[in-house]
Amino acid sequence: MLDKNTNILIIGMGLLGGSYAKALTKKGFDVKCITRSQSSVDFALSEGMISYGTTAPEPELIGWADLAVFALYPHVFVEWVESYGKYFKKGAVLTDVTGVKSCIVDKIQSLLPEGVEFIAAHPMAGREVYGVQNSDDRIFNGANYIVTPTDKNTEEAVRLCKDLGHTLGFAHVAELTPEDHDMMIAYLSQLTHCIAISLMTSSDVPKLKEYTGDSFRDLTRIARINEDMWTELFLLNKKPLISMIDQFSGELYRLRTYIADDNTEKLKEMMRMSTERRAAFDKTKMTED
Amino acid sequence: MLDKNTNILIIGMGLLGGSYAKALTKKGFDVKCITRSQSSVDFALSEGMISYGTTAPEPELIGWADLAVFALYPHVFVEWVESYGKYFKKGAVLTDVTGVKSCIVDKIQSLLPEGVEFIAAHPMAGREVYGVQNSDDRIFNGANYIVTPTDKNTEEAVRLCKDLGHTLGFAHVAELTPEDHDMMIAYLSQLTHCIAISLMTSSDVPKLKEYTGDSFRDLTRIARINEDMWTELFLLNKKPLISMIDQFSGELYRLRTYIADDNTEKLKEMMRMSTERRAAFDKTKMTED
Repeated sequence: MLDKNTNILIIGMGLLGGSYAKALTKKGFDVKCITRSQSSVDFALSEGMISYGTTAPEPELIGWADLAVFALYPHVFVEWVESYGKYFKKGAVLTDVTGVKSCIVDKIQSLLPEGVEFIAAHPMAGREVYGVQNSDDRIFNGANYIVTPTDKNTEEAVRLCKDLGHTLGFAHVAELTPEDHDMMIAYLSQLTHCIAISLMTSSDVPKLKEYTGDSFRDLTRIARINEDMWTELFLLNKKPLISMIDQFSGELYRLRTYIADDNTEKLKEMMRMSTERRAAFDKTKMTED
Repeated sequence: MLDKNTNILIIGMGLLGGSYAKALTKKGFDVKCITRSQSSVDFALSEGMISYGTTAPEPELIGWADLAVFALYPHVFVEWVESYGKYFKKGAVLTDVTGVKSCIVDKIQSLLPEGVEFIAAHPMAGREVYGVQNSDDRIFNGANYIVTPTDKNTEEAVRLCKDLGHTLGFAHVAELTPEDHDMMIAYLSQLTHCIAISLMTSSDVPKLKEYTGDSFRDLTRIARINEDMWTELFLLNKKPLISMIDQFSGELYRLRTYIADDNTEKLKEMMRMSTERRAAFDKTKMTED
């Protein structure tokens, strides 16, 4: 169980790492961090987000952690654990914020020493800006948090990880296998980003602002995108993502065909299905939020 | 010029007609209406949105109007003008809220008696609900209003129509030819609705709510769609819309190819272009809003 004596170490103080630190320090936990740049450490200290921070992977600090949260790019995460994973103490639990799972979870679990457990999680919250300077623990309010255990995980660690989600302020904590998570994320997050990018590059409208309604604004908000992070996430989840792009393209082509053929009946039928599904979604939202 | 002595007649009291009536009555205009159902008349009267309303196309009332706003489905609009357009007085100016223009403007202009002028406009504001009961003049705040004159229009009528946009509270009033308007709307509004529908019908995820982030929510908000109205609008703007669907599909396929080929350089380049365009858009927004 997560309690006030749980020593929390955050590795990577960016937007998410910083938001975790803010939320957890506010709740009374002792939070320390290791991150790449001294300026991020300085900022986090000056804002009172952490009690200690360093740019060096100090073995003593790593050994201090009961719970470590990795908020790094996937490839940096793997390299870090390869180099310094040995310094964690027996009984330490590690978790992460990575947006893809299948390609990461087994690898990390196999790299860790006996008695150190990795339980993966995906906090579905973010902003279109990054860096610890933009961190904000309010992004967790009303958002979803998905834990993706494997058969290597203990019940205790899964419970601890879910506790963390609730403590951070997430509205809903769910559980999925890494594979189901990746298919879900391909549909609900990666595909939507692919669409926003493609929509933005489709046509260059001068004076765009004078002609847009809310819909275009909403659909392209996420077209401001961190190209390093998302390129990595797309490629790590290539198979499910391509399959979802193809499914979506098929549906858009179906709609195009109905328009070309003046098929009002089929058009309306498709719109009714879309309306129904979206309305059901709004309804559950209102009930549970 | 629009002044407090301008008699305003609204034909069609739905979401938009009602929102026009609310805004204009608040500003001190005398607003009357003709609409299909008595319950809409009753509602508008009880809310003080109009001074008089009827379900009958009373020639005297039509002849009373200095400015008439048509807020009807396109095909109903044409039929109405065919039947009752003759009752407008010389000097009356007609405008509309229709989302497509090329297919409508010439036709309406040719149906009207000498001395009655139609100047088309498209208020780019709406909600996912409809009916006069949901009307709300705040939807115009921060939104765009596009006037689409032809060479048949006088400067005075264009000015009157723009005045109306400003009076309603729109943040920006622009001018486009009907053809440019339709191409713009195919891209910025109709394509986004096609995408939202296709995204919603692509996959049926049970317990969707537990796994979604903001992006999917944003992209599918408009997937709750009035199927009668949008089917009509799509088919009336078929050529530009299909051309925009094809352009977008081409971009999405390009992105898919880069993912399939692990082409990180091209992926990042596309994301940088999308980020740059969207950032420019946010910037003009902040400056002008």
